[in-house]
Amino acid sequence: MKYCSQCGQAVTQKIPAGDNRHRYVCDHCHTIHYENPRIIAGCLPVYQNQVLLCRRAIEPRYGLWTLPAGFMENGESTEQAALRETLEEANAEVVIRKLYTLTSILHVDQVQMIYLADLPEPIFSASEESLEVRLFSEEEIPWQELAFPTIGNALRFYFADRKTGDFPLRHLHLDRGADGTVNCELGTHQ
Amino acid sequence: MKYCSQCGQAVTQKIPAGDNRHRYVCDHCHTIHYENPRIIAGCLPVYQNQVLLCRRAIEPRYGLWTLPAGFMENGESTEQAALRETLEEANAEVVIRKLYTLTSILHVDQVQMIYLADLPEPIFSASEESLEVRLFSEEEIPWQELAFPTIGNALRFYFADRKTGDFPLRHLHLDRGADGTVNCELGTHQ
Repeated sequence: MKYCSQCGQAVTQKIPAGDNRHRYVCDHCHTIHYENPRIIAGCLPVYQNQVLLCRRAIEPRYGLWTLPAGFMENGESTEQAALRETLEEANAEVVIRKLYTLTSILHVDQVQMIYLADLPEPIFSASEESLEVRLFSEEEIPWQELAFPTIGNALRFYFADRKTGDFPLRHLHLDRGADGTVNCELGTHQ
Repeated sequence: MKYCSQCGQAVTQKIPAGDNRHRYVCDHCHTIHYENPRIIAGCLPVYQNQVLLCRRAIEPRYGLWTLPAGFMENGESTEQAALRETLEEANAEVVIRKLYTLTSILHVDQVQMIYLADLPEPIFSASEESLEVRLFSEEEIPWQELAFPTIGNALRFYFADRKTGDFPLRHLHLDRGADGTVNCELGTHQ
């Protein structure tokens, strides 16, 4: 951020009175510009013994496989965002079963929520955002071609939990270590 | 938003190519300025048969009672945000038990997450953000002086669930109707 979105003057970084963090502040109109994490909402759609994945037609990770998910918009709920993204990316209408993974991704300032969902009929198709959409059994999952670590996490939890039929909420915390590797920790309260 | 935060020129509202929503777009440097919901994270701290509430020292709702909660910051997890807010607002160090309420508040573009937490010792105090901090038994809750509808929801769920000892995640959807009243709906998947 270089300029104030309210008045167009240059902003500076400072700690506002009563605050304890650096913010972009406009010295001209005194607006404080807060920056906060964004929510990624999506679904893990299940049809019989298979899950639905999308092959990305957009950057980043063009050509890799992902669950249908994307940025939550203003004016919608987290569930509505997850359903909308599934429709937009996979042309699939699913029924949400429950919130399944909640991952704080610290190095990109995102919180990802994946809902476990049922796909009542095997109806789906490629879209502007997906080169290809298809169902995968556990044996067919392209583990080496997944777009994001969070997608692998959700799928591993799903196939493990499917054995018991109990799908508890998984609270995760992803961070990039000093060596650049991404560490994943389960919430301490599980 | 009136000006581009990247180059300082005036922005206009339009639907970018490949998008289906109006965004603020800079015709000069072509930056698209997305606006997304923000996360409010907080705790419902429990000590023996009492819960901890804070009387707000800041607007909005100055002087009314709330659970310790506030905007999640970049670079932290949802749990870290909830713990930080509890420390900042109530000078209380709690231990998170589980995610308890997840509320999409559509008319203000917020998603509120309240964690059920244990206060190991009755140690807390007023702060820059709280005029007063105290423990309340169920009979003492100032129901008519709560700052936000979401706080009443969380407390009502807590006192009801306490009878069984089971505290399932409550998925809520708050919206303002055409008549200005705030409607609250439970997620359909519960």
